[in-house]
Amino acid sequence: MTPRAFASDNNAGAHPEVLAALAAANAGHARSYGHDPLTDQAREVFRLHFGPAADAWFVFNGTAANVLGLAAVTRPHEAIICSDGAHINVDECGAPERFTGCKLIPVRCPDGKLRPADLPPLLRGIGDEHRVQPRVVSITQATELGTVYTAGEIRALADAAHAQGLLLHLDGARLANAAVSLELPLRALTTDAGVDLLSFGGTKNGLLGAEAIVFPQGAGGDAMAFIRKQGMQLASKMRFLAAQFIALLGGDLWQRNAGHANRMARLLAEQVQGVAGITLTQPVEANGVFARVPPEHIPALQERAFFYVWNPETSEVRWMTAWDTTEQDIATFAAAVREIVR
Amino acid sequence: MTPRAFASDNNAGAHPEVLAALAAANAGHARSYGHDPLTDQAREVFRLHFGPAADAWFVFNGTAANVLGLAAVTRPHEAIICSDGAHINVDECGAPERFTGCKLIPVRCPDGKLRPADLPPLLRGIGDEHRVQPRVVSITQATELGTVYTAGEIRALADAAHAQGLLLHLDGARLANAAVSLELPLRALTTDAGVDLLSFGGTKNGLLGAEAIVFPQGAGGDAMAFIRKQGMQLASKMRFLAAQFIALLGGDLWQRNAGHANRMARLLAEQVQGVAGITLTQPVEANGVFARVPPEHIPALQERAFFYVWNPETSEVRWMTAWDTTEQDIATFAAAVREIVR
Amino acid sequence: MTPRAFASDNNAGAHPEVLAALAAANAGHARSYGHDPLTDQAREVFRLHFGPAADAWFVFNGTAANVLGLAAVTRPHEAIICSDGAHINVDECGAPERFTGCKLIPVRCPDGKLRPADLPPLLRGIGDEHRVQPRVVSITQATELGTVYTAGEIRALADAAHAQGLLLHLDGARLANAAVSLELPLRALTTDAGVDLLSFGGTKNGLLGAEAIVFPQGAGGDAMAFIRKQGMQLASKMRFLAAQFIALLGGDLWQRNAGHANRMARLLAEQVQGVAGITLTQPVEANGVFARVPPEHIPALQERAFFYVWNPETSEVRWMTAWDTTEQDIATFAAAVREIVR
Amino acid sequence: MTPRAFASDNNAGAHPEVLAALAAANAGHARSYGHDPLTDQAREVFRLHFGPAADAWFVFNGTAANVLGLAAVTRPHEAIICSDGAHINVDECGAPERFTGCKLIPVRCPDGKLRPADLPPLLRGIGDEHRVQPRVVSITQATELGTVYTAGEIRALADAAHAQGLLLHLDGARLANAAVSLELPLRALTTDAGVDLLSFGGTKNGLLGAEAIVFPQGAGGDAMAFIRKQGMQLASKMRFLAAQFIALLGGDLWQRNAGHANRMARLLAEQVQGVAGITLTQPVEANGVFARVPPEHIPALQERAFFYVWNPETSEVRWMTAWDTTEQDIATFAAAVREIVR
Repeated sequence: MTPRAFASDNNAGAHPEVLAALAAANAGHARSYGHDPLTDQAREVFRLHFGPAADAWFVFNGTAANVLGLAAVTRPHEAIICSDGAHINVDECGAPERFTGCKLIPVRCPDGKLRPADLPPLLRGIGDEHRVQPRVVSITQATELGTVYTAGEIRALADAAHAQGLLLHLDGARLANAAVSLELPLRALTTDAGVDLLSFGGTKNGLLGAEAIVFPQGAGGDAMAFIRKQGMQLASKMRFLAAQFIALLGGDLWQRNAGHANRMARLLAEQVQGVAGITLTQPVEANGVFARVPPEHIPALQERAFFYVWNPETSEVRWMTAWDTTEQDIATFAAAVREIVR
Repeated sequence: MTPRAFASDNNAGAHPEVLAALAAANAGHARSYGHDPLTDQAREVFRLHFGPAADAWFVFNGTAANVLGLAAVTRPHEAIICSDGAHINVDECGAPERFTGCKLIPVRCPDGKLRPADLPPLLRGIGDEHRVQPRVVSITQATELGTVYTAGEIRALADAAHAQGLLLHLDGARLANAAVSLELPLRALTTDAGVDLLSFGGTKNGLLGAEAIVFPQGAGGDAMAFIRKQGMQLASKMRFLAAQFIALLGGDLWQRNAGHANRMARLLAEQVQGVAGITLTQPVEANGVFARVPPEHIPALQERAFFYVWNPETSEVRWMTAWDTTEQDIATFAAAVREIVR
Repeated sequence: MTPRAFASDNNAGAHPEVLAALAAANAGHARSYGHDPLTDQAREVFRLHFGPAADAWFVFNGTAANVLGLAAVTRPHEAIICSDGAHINVDECGAPERFTGCKLIPVRCPDGKLRPADLPPLLRGIGDEHRVQPRVVSITQATELGTVYTAGEIRALADAAHAQGLLLHLDGARLANAAVSLELPLRALTTDAGVDLLSFGGTKNGLLGAEAIVFPQGAGGDAMAFIRKQGMQLASKMRFLAAQFIALLGGDLWQRNAGHANRMARLLAEQVQGVAGITLTQPVEANGVFARVPPEHIPALQERAFFYVWNPETSEVRWMTAWDTTEQDIATFAAAVREIVR
Repeated sequence: MTPRAFASDNNAGAHPEVLAALAAANAGHARSYGHDPLTDQAREVFRLHFGPAADAWFVFNGTAANVLGLAAVTRPHEAIICSDGAHINVDECGAPERFTGCKLIPVRCPDGKLRPADLPPLLRGIGDEHRVQPRVVSITQATELGTVYTAGEIRALADAAHAQGLLLHLDGARLANAAVSLELPLRALTTDAGVDLLSFGGTKNGLLGAEAIVFPQGAGGDAMAFIRKQGMQLASKMRFLAAQFIALLGGDLWQRNAGHANRMARLLAEQVQGVAGITLTQPVEANGVFARVPPEHIPALQERAFFYVWNPETSEVRWMTAWDTTEQDIATFAAAVREIVR
């Protein structure tokens, strides 16, 4: 067992209520491939959160949720606009290009957030057969830099996309953290803000491993069943993905987990921001803290509790908190920062 | 909860020892993406079974295990020879073609088993740029028809493939059932029989959901890490896949589960084969029973315990047993057969 | 220069009128990529033959015409039904699978012709997410075995396909030969028979090198411009493809060339069919003659005029005639057959 | 017929010597698919220019030459580094991503030229399974901005690439223009400068339509035949591609055509650079002139002789000259510039 640290929210395990739900689901036989009552129930739980038209499809991990959702709404000569630091652009080993055939068009976004004004210069080639054709704008909520789009910002992007015949995709690997941060229901940031399709992340918020592709407006999924199967993401014992989502979204576990992680991030930010030599580089709006740290002190700090250097050129590090981070973890690490950096 | 029936071994849940292993693995943080001690231990467990050179990669499901393994050893202009009823040919929605680019060349195999004599007519186009180039022979063990290749039969296929510069791939979704049926260790049917790469199935043998790509000879996997990631199959909380395999293969659970399922299939076969109107169509060598049943009786039987019609033209059905099938399940169903068919 | 022989109709050169058209087209500048008057004219010529809705797209070769047309109407989880000997199935090095992602489902067709009765057993998996979804039935006219579908046979296939929501594709690499053979206009075998898309072959009928994708009913081509470009088949100096088609289809060159080649095939068949040891294996309906020839005589015959062995197991050979085959070529070769085989 | 203008060097037709070569090649039969004497001769002509190890493969157009060459040396999880304005990045409708599966990593290059210092920041993810793996550095010679890499600059890039285990690819759609500009043989800029593979452009230099993939060092092409066929670029009447290259490279036609086009570009630059309001934005090193022109005058100028606006934001236009541009064309257009802009 590795001690709790700040490397990633996916270093945490599963919440005990999730394991209990798996055990409860493990009774007798169930029809495979999602034709079972728990899967029906989990799909219904998604409709409660995202609206009655919402159509949810369960997959194993976040890369698949992004890629297969995008595959459902694109053709290979089309393109996906995203921020330069988007997970789909830099952390999925080219899976989006490989499976969809599409080109990704990255936009430089210093705070991780795309804005409507970024779009027009990228749309000039529409109709020109030599150019890939933009079809989707993809945003991440919360962003890879721990920032959060407001509902209004998402709506503005959706309107800008729709005005050009484009769709808005949301990579919600940490959507729960964003919603809790803004004290909004999930649908306020998605369905009601004009999002056309999204990935909903469960793994980083306390599941063993389960993600969902959601079409909140109910459209777009006609071939989704085949795309998921051909995309190698159809679980035979689907009840075990479904049970995790019921545990997470059937009550308030999603809020408790995300709210706790967010609080721990704010606590860490508060405790280190006064330390000379430490500069926070992004607002702490979800469960990540980004800070510039003197490079000579990074190795010693990593020995106390591991974390990743985000940008070696600027000596910027990322500290992620999780549903299981404790106030003691924060206090201990903040003390280490004060001890080592000063 | 659906009552236990004979639809598929993937309708069964997870063995209690597997759930216990998941709970035990759920302590504190672990490095993600497989850089954790449990993953190391699980890889070692595979070496104990498949030999010291064996290289195991964990993925979520069987389609991925087949497709990503094949992708590691093929280029898109190559081809994969398999039986016409192979899972990769008929039950994976074209995932092998989509991800590898390769064509599948199916061979008619009435008992599910390829033979060396099937190969020569398929190899005539080697070197001809108009033809796809055979690169892999893929077999399923136990086969989709419940039959089992002997170690000698596999060795003969490996030799025939290697003599032409081809590789032998084994889809081992039910390899445990085959090994127990033949009373052989896993390596006797794979590493020692010349298999170059294989899928090892855990899900149908009592796991929640985990499969492995294994290169038993240690070769072929140089790009496997990237292929798995790009193939959307890299688990962030990998310890939970690893823990399942340690539970299954670290002791004798794999043998207990497979052996039990096999016994239940033989029991079912014994109890129904005397019934007038029922004809077994394949030898019962693993955990599936294939039988011709008068079509007018099939719906009534399915109401007692669900199973699939394998071939509507010949009125052939498939009854699958699992690690959790009971002798009482068999007795009850056999009685139903006697009652309904007679 | 190789002497004229019977290897393939693509061993012939370009008809002199085609070269003259290229020279005439080579005056001054023309807008590239098909935005030039000759391309407009060539597209109009196709409408004259295939009806006012027909939409023609020019590409470099026959593989591209087939693959890009099929790509325009399929999604990667779909499937294409064709004869086992179809060019797309055996002679395009897996290009259809690679570019469309689709599986090809071959049907055994001893005379090269699919029939409506072949379809039902292949459509059972429709709606089942584990199976590729048939979307297109593809036929070849004239077939790879020198036989010809009647207009009624094509209509019956189109009706059968459409009744299931499938499309009918026609690989018309030798459509001219078939139309002339049946004394029908091109549209009788395509537009009027319900064909949804087709490849029209020019190269084998006397062009330097040009093929067309045609949507005779006018539908299906919305993304065709992008698919052609992304498929690496957009010619910069498009006028030189267009000029060839104007030469071929603007007058009766297509009929003269195809009619001549067909006559030469019939002449060859007549002159060899009486020879003891020679058995014609297919009706001679276009420009190919298929015959069983004693294997010991084949090398000597190939030395006189090269041709390919079609099936070494049955000692069946293929003799193709072209627009430039002469009666003297036939007489000389038939004499050689009589001399060598007898 | 469109009057000669400055839209693109691909608006020009074919040089008369090329048409004559086609006519000469059109005698009798030739084995198809490149198994003919002219193809052998054309491959030999490439060896004369690029060295005795050079391996040339003929294809129809430049997109294919780039994409299929890159496909021969990459796997889908790899990446290709190129300038942001590279043809492969912006003008091939995503064909590189679609066919190779690779991601393109664009680098901002204001003069169209990559430099060794651009590489290190892009190579940090090597070995990290979450990141695509850089495999090829691709440059364009002459660049899309009419500038030219010196032999030393290419050698420095090759050395930098090779030091990291990467290959250097050169898109030589206008390689002839660059070589003539530098007064160097073709091999000085390719084989001798460490280029691993290249596209050699014929179409823009006076051919009807033919391009080549060249492996100057003789390595890398083991699967090229299959990749070309599967990539839909194997010409059946290959002799007609080969004959064009023999006409171009067998004597000095390539130099005459490129030299003339280059001279016309310099002449145009000289005649307009004094005009108030016109600013040349790139050195004129090949056959393109890039200039800032007052936006209000562009439409009137385009009516005199069509050309493209390269960048509407900066009011930058591109004037391309070709093998058939005349001094009178230049004089007439320069006069129009003086008349309209002043």
